Amino acid sequence: MIYITRRETFNAAHRLFRPEWDDDKNLQVFGKCSNPNWHGHNYVLYVTVKGNVDPETGFLINLKDLSKILNEHVIEKLDHKNMNLEVDFMKGRIASTENLAIGIWEQIEEPIRKLGATLHSVKVYETEKNFIEYQG
Amino acid sequence: MIYITRRETFNAAHRLFRPEWDDDKNLQVFGKCSNPNWHGHNYVLYVTVKGNVDPETGFLINLKDLSKILNEHVIEKLDHKNMNLEVDFMKGRIASTENLAIGIWEQIEEPIRKLGATLHSVKVYETEKNFIEYQG
Amino acid sequence: MIYITRRETFNAAHRLFRPEWDDDKNLQVFGKCSNPNWHGHNYVLYVTVKGNVDPETGFLINLKDLSKILNEHVIEKLDHKNMNLEVDFMKGRIASTENLAIGIWEQIEEPIRKLGATLHSVKVYETEKNFIEYQG
Amino acid sequence: MIYITRRETFNAAHRLFRPEWDDDKNLQVFGKCSNPNWHGHNYVLYVTVKGNVDPETGFLINLKDLSKILNEHVIEKLDHKNMNLEVDFMKGRIASTENLAIGIWEQIEEPIRKLGATLHSVKVYETEKNFIEYQG
Amino acid sequence: MIYITRRETFNAAHRLFRPEWDDDKNLQVFGKCSNPNWHGHNYVLYVTVKGNVDPETGFLINLKDLSKILNEHVIEKLDHKNMNLEVDFMKGRIASTENLAIGIWEQIEEPIRKLGATLHSVKVYETEKNFIEYQG
Amino acid sequence: MIYITRRETFNAAHRLFRPEWDDDKNLQVFGKCSNPNWHGHNYVLYVTVKGNVDPETGFLINLKDLSKILNEHVIEKLDHKNMNLEVDFMKGRIASTENLAIGIWEQIEEPIRKLGATLHSVKVYETEKNFIEYQG
Repeated sequence: MIYITRRETFNAAHRLFRPEWDDDKNLQVFGKCSNPNWHGHNYVLYVTVKGNVDPETGFLINLKDLSKILNEHVIEKLDHKNMNLEVDFMKGRIASTENLAIGIWEQIEEPIRKLGATLHSVKVYETEKNFIEYQG
Repeated sequence: MIYITRRETFNAAHRLFRPEWDDDKNLQVFGKCSNPNWHGHNYVLYVTVKGNVDPETGFLINLKDLSKILNEHVIEKLDHKNMNLEVDFMKGRIASTENLAIGIWEQIEEPIRKLGATLHSVKVYETEKNFIEYQG
Repeated sequence: MIYITRRETFNAAHRLFRPEWDDDKNLQVFGKCSNPNWHGHNYVLYVTVKGNVDPETGFLINLKDLSKILNEHVIEKLDHKNMNLEVDFMKGRIASTENLAIGIWEQIEEPIRKLGATLHSVKVYETEKNFIEYQG
Repeated sequence: MIYITRRETFNAAHRLFRPEWDDDKNLQVFGKCSNPNWHGHNYVLYVTVKGNVDPETGFLINLKDLSKILNEHVIEKLDHKNMNLEVDFMKGRIASTENLAIGIWEQIEEPIRKLGATLHSVKVYETEKNFIEYQG
Repeated sequence: MIYITRRETFNAAHRLFRPEWDDDKNLQVFGKCSNPNWHGHNYVLYVTVKGNVDPETGFLINLKDLSKILNEHVIEKLDHKNMNLEVDFMKGRIASTENLAIGIWEQIEEPIRKLGATLHSVKVYETEKNFIEYQG
Repeated sequence: MIYITRRETFNAAHRLFRPEWDDDKNLQVFGKCSNPNWHGHNYVLYVTVKGNVDPETGFLINLKDLSKILNEHVIEKLDHKNMNLEVDFMKGRIASTENLAIGIWEQIEEPIRKLGATLHSVKVYETEKNFIEYQG
């Protein structure tokens, strides 16, 4: 068993709030992250895949294939987008980093399995001071 | 002559566009940065101040005073804000990193002079791959 | 199960030595870290907490609450301090990074449990070239 | 149980290819990494060792001993070398990061055991965008 | 006058040596960088361009145009290549980072001028511990 | 004219205070940096040297020679030391980063000149949030 990790980045706007709460309640729970005019981040994503080394190539997985999956299922959907308004897999979810990590996991688990490997971890840095890791 | 640099960070949403252009023209010039639903960044700011070392303290400037200026005139105005809609010194300006660096310079040049030092450089990282420096 | 990690920093002085050993013995075992006049580091701390996502907030834990715990129980006690002389939970312990990580764990395990989450890992970087991780 | 990690770096040339394949087949599978004229990297290595804290020293392991093992068994063999042509433990293996991590593990597992600790993880960064982790 | 900097990366193999010297003389002057079997690096390139902000776009230069120049004239020629054998603008030059920075400057000065801006600085990191800057 | 920069690190303890002031006055001016029990940092040093490229070697200066100077005149004097008590060139000076950068400049300017190059800049990071640059 070996693990390979790929780092990708994307920029997005978001807002933390519950639509059934008024601005005061949202501010109280979510702080300045509830700003109705949005704010944003340079997100950093680390995706870790596990499996066995193919003796013919010395690879667990071809990184080009992994990059292609990440770009198609994650980066193109999120980069330079508004996470609350424009990202299909975040619809109906609070745009927290926790939910983002879970959403990304759901997008890529199946395509990675089709490559013959197993998704192990999705790690998302919202800022350099905090990150979420989800292992399914 | 000696130089002291302070690093600060803030997160903000923005959009690059000219209001008199339609979405197609804005997309053609500004690319995905023109997304009408906004996107955002973790901006990193480096402010460099120059002057002489005070023989009594060994300081060019007390970093607490510099931090206070940066927080009051820059970070509180920008952090978790929409740069196009909510930041007074960006009104009427395209929200490019170039204009942001110039705007920050204008906000802090005078307060830093009152501390007895001279503003030397404002550097703003929009992403880890590109940054702007302005020296007045 | 999801994991959230918070990064904090603090600066401290310390010295590695056993009081019952003479300086030669201490130098032989601890090298230049045994300098009787102290030396110090910019420590970087990563605290990881695990639990379930609250469907109402999308949070595992409110980061403001976690930061408050880390500041009150760890940073205020260590920052700009002498680890051997001034830090209550390091009394009677050799000021190694191993013991520091264990000491920090003991300080924050209970307060984090009261927030409804579980402490998973305490990671302490002494320099950019070595770090300790403790998982209880 | 506690974990200590040491970071080391080395620079090396390599090429990904199977000698029984022609250049076209190698290019198709390995992409530009198959360049017959070689290319190279600044590799970053993180070695994690686990064990108990020695109450006399406060150490899991003396970092000087760990560094010595890593330098003798890994860095001196790889630094400023051609991984395909000059590194004994990579002979007969495709010079992928996966095989490199496994090879490094095999070099240091026994020497670390002799120090009274247990090798836990070998992590190798080929670039800032991808790394391999092997845990035996 | 404002400055914009773009960061790019490439991996390459190289060797420091003078062909008219024997291996001993090359080893004495260039150390392990003279290894006849090559070694390599993850080079990091920072290109800084200066000029005025265009009031219509808020840009000094469109980063897409700058990236295109860097990719066409620098990255495609160097990435996954052998700097001594395969890079046209390094022919006849010792493959030092000094000469590499000068060579890159010569490749991009004219294309950047055609964009209406002025090349200010080429900075090349060979490792995280040393870098060269050239300003023409 | 070309510039080469070398990065080195060292750890030290220090305290900011004036001996003729009492603890209250020192605390008021220097804040928690005046702690009489010391604190410390992982300092990062960047030394930049300028000159012409030697056509025979492609080098501005041999990095081994520069490293030797930095180790002998700076790192060995500062690493794992108490800057106020044990560093000859800081005697009689407040142990601020400003004075440290000036002191380092004075130590290495002459030895670098003897190598046939010119010292251009000494940059010292006290923490990741602030650094001093001195250019003589």
